[in-house]
Amino acid sequence: MGKLLVVGSVALDTVKTPFGEGTDILGGSATYFSTAASFFTSVALIAVVGEDFPQQHITFLKSRGIDLAGLERRPGATFRWKGEYTHQLNEAHTLDTQLNVFETFRPQIPDAYREPDILFLGNIHPELQLDVLQKVTRPSLVACDTMNFWINGQREALWKVLEKVDVLIINDGEARALGQDSNLVKVAKLVLSRGPKHLIIKRGEYGVLMFNENQVFGAPAFPLNGVRDPTGAGDTFAGGFLGYLAATSNRSPEVMKQAIIFGSVMASFTVESFSLDRLRILDYKEVKDRFREFRRLTQFEDIQ
Amino acid sequence: MGKLLVVGSVALDTVKTPFGEGTDILGGSATYFSTAASFFTSVALIAVVGEDFPQQHITFLKSRGIDLAGLERRPGATFRWKGEYTHQLNEAHTLDTQLNVFETFRPQIPDAYREPDILFLGNIHPELQLDVLQKVTRPSLVACDTMNFWINGQREALWKVLEKVDVLIINDGEARALGQDSNLVKVAKLVLSRGPKHLIIKRGEYGVLMFNENQVFGAPAFPLNGVRDPTGAGDTFAGGFLGYLAATSNRSPEVMKQAIIFGSVMASFTVESFSLDRLRILDYKEVKDRFREFRRLTQFEDIQ
Repeated sequence: MGKLLVVGSVALDTVKTPFGEGTDILGGSATYFSTAASFFTSVALIAVVGEDFPQQHITFLKSRGIDLAGLERRPGATFRWKGEYTHQLNEAHTLDTQLNVFETFRPQIPDAYREPDILFLGNIHPELQLDVLQKVTRPSLVACDTMNFWINGQREALWKVLEKVDVLIINDGEARALGQDSNLVKVAKLVLSRGPKHLIIKRGEYGVLMFNENQVFGAPAFPLNGVRDPTGAGDTFAGGFLGYLAATSNRSPEVMKQAIIFGSVMASFTVESFSLDRLRILDYKEVKDRFREFRRLTQFEDIQ
Repeated sequence: MGKLLVVGSVALDTVKTPFGEGTDILGGSATYFSTAASFFTSVALIAVVGEDFPQQHITFLKSRGIDLAGLERRPGATFRWKGEYTHQLNEAHTLDTQLNVFETFRPQIPDAYREPDILFLGNIHPELQLDVLQKVTRPSLVACDTMNFWINGQREALWKVLEKVDVLIINDGEARALGQDSNLVKVAKLVLSRGPKHLIIKRGEYGVLMFNENQVFGAPAFPLNGVRDPTGAGDTFAGGFLGYLAATSNRSPEVMKQAIIFGSVMASFTVESFSLDRLRILDYKEVKDRFREFRRLTQFEDIQ
């Protein structure tokens, strides 16, 4: 199995942005995550799809070397999300959500998956995240995502999850809701006192902040003149971040920072096209080149 | 005279934020700009105040070494601005504006000021900005600010100003309005084709982007747990940026990047207190220390 295991959603998205639209295109948190991670490491996925899930998407994920033994196919339809972005691309407007087979998703962990090195708990019910954690040998690194729906509705269960994770990866609106404070430094202090050693706050076009106990690291998003569809940027970020960490095994502060940049690099590619279309034609040289462009974007010399 | 000349407003602000309030406190674009710049270089100010402007503020500005020969005192009341910030500190809600003596402000340039090395045209009517430009020997660097009121109402005059400036320093909402496009990379391309060699886009708590012909530089804002009043952050940024450039005379890309960081450093101090209260007690060692903290916040190692 892969050193990296992700539990999340595989979906068919219908997306409209000012720059185009797509119907029933490949989406889902585990899909974006594992595809991004596959540029760095071997990755295994736990998710569920319905009978209607096109074989071509399975073929694509396999072509990325993603281990799909944990991808259940069940009677019924695949999870569908329909959303729209206006020119303010930072925020999706959900038009329709059909959970379908995802509604009764209970992650099954194949025996071969029970000792992952790194585990990413995608945005699912906190009780299910806890359930997955109990079914695996404690990985050396556990990261998780969540959303306002769980922050507001399952706060207690969510804190129980957070006590057991190393890295929480959420967006700024979620961070403010979780910490019940508009100041992110104060939110970080609270979150880091409750379990996670790292809080990563995604800010869309404004980049990302990583709070550790004694340090903050920040990076802008890569300025693009052709953002076509922001869907999946956050999960792609997490996939690049954890994929790079899985590939190095070094967890020094310097490597954590580089992982933040690789996450940002992968997200910057994803948003250039709909669905995973940009990642389908991406090669690792382009990834390295953009990492170096990120250095030019952000590095400056010390003063005397 | 100073190598650096600023034309702008000196005001008395009444400000309310979730963390306190102040009535008729020292404010204005030229005030914040020149105080920030004074940490790096000598600076001269052109502005107008009324008969009611307290002598203690004059004493403070003089104590910073700011040349006030261009500060007119005229019959009438000083420009007053009243605003409020909610927990979303990024945006001010203007409650009242009393232009008073600022309404008929026609910048007079003392003879001793006619050959500045660097000129900052604060946010005044574009026709007045043009008028100032015509009255001085072309400085080696001209920067200007503006606002949506002029972008929407004086677009043609504003473009005439921009043809003559080297650096445009505006916020992201203003950039989008000026470029009539939500994509900042496209806006930058347009603006840079019309005159300015550098477009600096301030994004409040999200930091800053500088677009040059062949390069983009980005820096996050310094994460603070105690933002009390964001008033003046943008003008303070401009003062730190141009103050550092005036002090070095080197205009290499590396120095421009350092100047962006010094602007961000100064802005991060200003927002820690109301009015210029934080800058009153700031010393240059703290400025250098925070510059180095900015490096820890943003610098990461290259990959093999």
